[in-house]
Amino acid sequence: MSKFVVIGERIHVISPEIKEALASRNSAPIIARAKAQLDAGADYIDVNIGPAERDGVEIMKWLVPELQAATDNAPLVLDTVNQDAIRAGLELYNPERGRAIVNSADAGDRLGNLDLAAEFGCICIGLLMKKGVPRDNDERNEYLQTILEHSMEVGMDPSEDVWFDPLTLVIKGMQEKQEEFLDFLRILKEMGLKSTCGLSNASNGMPKHVRPIVDSVLCAMSIESGLTSAIMNPTDKALMDTIKTSEIILNRTLYADSYLDI
Amino acid sequence: MSKFVVIGERIHVISPEIKEALASRNSAPIIARAKAQLDAGADYIDVNIGPAERDGVEIMKWLVPELQAATDNAPLVLDTVNQDAIRAGLELYNPERGRAIVNSADAGDRLGNLDLAAEFGCICIGLLMKKGVPRDNDERNEYLQTILEHSMEVGMDPSEDVWFDPLTLVIKGMQEKQEEFLDFLRILKEMGLKSTCGLSNASNGMPKHVRPIVDSVLCAMSIESGLTSAIMNPTDKALMDTIKTSEIILNRTLYADSYLDI
Repeated sequence: MSKFVVIGERIHVISPEIKEALASRNSAPIIARAKAQLDAGADYIDVNIGPAERDGVEIMKWLVPELQAATDNAPLVLDTVNQDAIRAGLELYNPERGRAIVNSADAGDRLGNLDLAAEFGCICIGLLMKKGVPRDNDERNEYLQTILEHSMEVGMDPSEDVWFDPLTLVIKGMQEKQEEFLDFLRILKEMGLKSTCGLSNASNGMPKHVRPIVDSVLCAMSIESGLTSAIMNPTDKALMDTIKTSEIILNRTLYADSYLDI
Repeated sequence: MSKFVVIGERIHVISPEIKEALASRNSAPIIARAKAQLDAGADYIDVNIGPAERDGVEIMKWLVPELQAATDNAPLVLDTVNQDAIRAGLELYNPERGRAIVNSADAGDRLGNLDLAAEFGCICIGLLMKKGVPRDNDERNEYLQTILEHSMEVGMDPSEDVWFDPLTLVIKGMQEKQEEFLDFLRILKEMGLKSTCGLSNASNGMPKHVRPIVDSVLCAMSIESGLTSAIMNPTDKALMDTIKTSEIILNRTLYADSYLDI
């Protein structure tokens, strides 16, 4: 079993600081956030530039080389619904320290992102959704089959090249659907498939002091159920400690008294 | 799915304070620890008086009524290898707020504790061991069958009256056996059987600042895998918060923003 992959989520257009930096083509605050996440243990940096309908191509052409130059070619996740922007980013991407990840395909309008990922020999996140979030595991399974089939049609190895996201649902409102989410992780694991998710979505809307414990417990349960990666905040030390400890318990890292400091 | 049962472990002869209190028949420090654990959310209080070969009967006759009188008849777990002492405790036990639990039977010399529990209509913890800890899940399964069969022979309902303990193993030394432990919890769950364990055994020998995170992560994973009860320190707030949060995620308690304070 390979090491759990932490994808840093903090370069996201929803942050006013990042939005402003993208608009003014000022890479300094973006690079600072990338470095902070890498220092905290992120394996990949997600670069979410929003829909970027007008200037997505230009942003990716500017940002991907700038960011990789400043981070010794850190592996990146290119995150936008603008497919041309992703293509522009992939054309300039340096895979020296890890293949790029396309974020994301789904079982609907965005199925074609698998073609793009296949063309560049990179990884693609496959959201198990079509229009809106999946209602239950039957729907997740239907979307899984669609993405599996298409990934094979375009020549990908679905056990390596696609990371399936069963979609974390908000506990406040969909509390009764959490166990099904965990069950689906187990199904993916049994099929030998990799997975990822936006872990902290589940605690959305909860009080600030409650979110870390909910994120940590769901994280431990998810890893035990088979989750192999997460899009998350790597500067959240409690969550990173949970991941390290999960890897100790599941015997994927050798225990040492100092394992939390490594 | 019924609520997770927290058994408070802090009345234990291994504590010098408790050992002294037992020897001098001074109930005050024992009652104080029982109350602190109940206030912290313990459902049951484990009363471990050690082997107590000489005076176990006398201790239980004194302590069980004393402890229950001071705690509005808190439910107790009677914990000693001295079977006569357990019998003496059961004879004076008030089941008003919960049946007594005998701690414990195993698949070897202590199988007869099932007979005792059956005679008093109470619950019995069934350790999945014979001589020493189980080497693997084949051994756990063998011991499970022995205890299952005998419990039915003596007229117990094994899905209600026996709580199976698959035995937590120390991570430092048996790191590669943790996942099997979790797998066995899943087997018990699928069979509709209840379970318990000494949760903090796994982190034995680890540095003080590491133990709470290991205990919490293993707890979350264990509950997700099917664990229905644990013998633990209920005054460990991080661990209690982990249990409460696990019950939220698995939809056994209705979410409220204040759930950690309830």
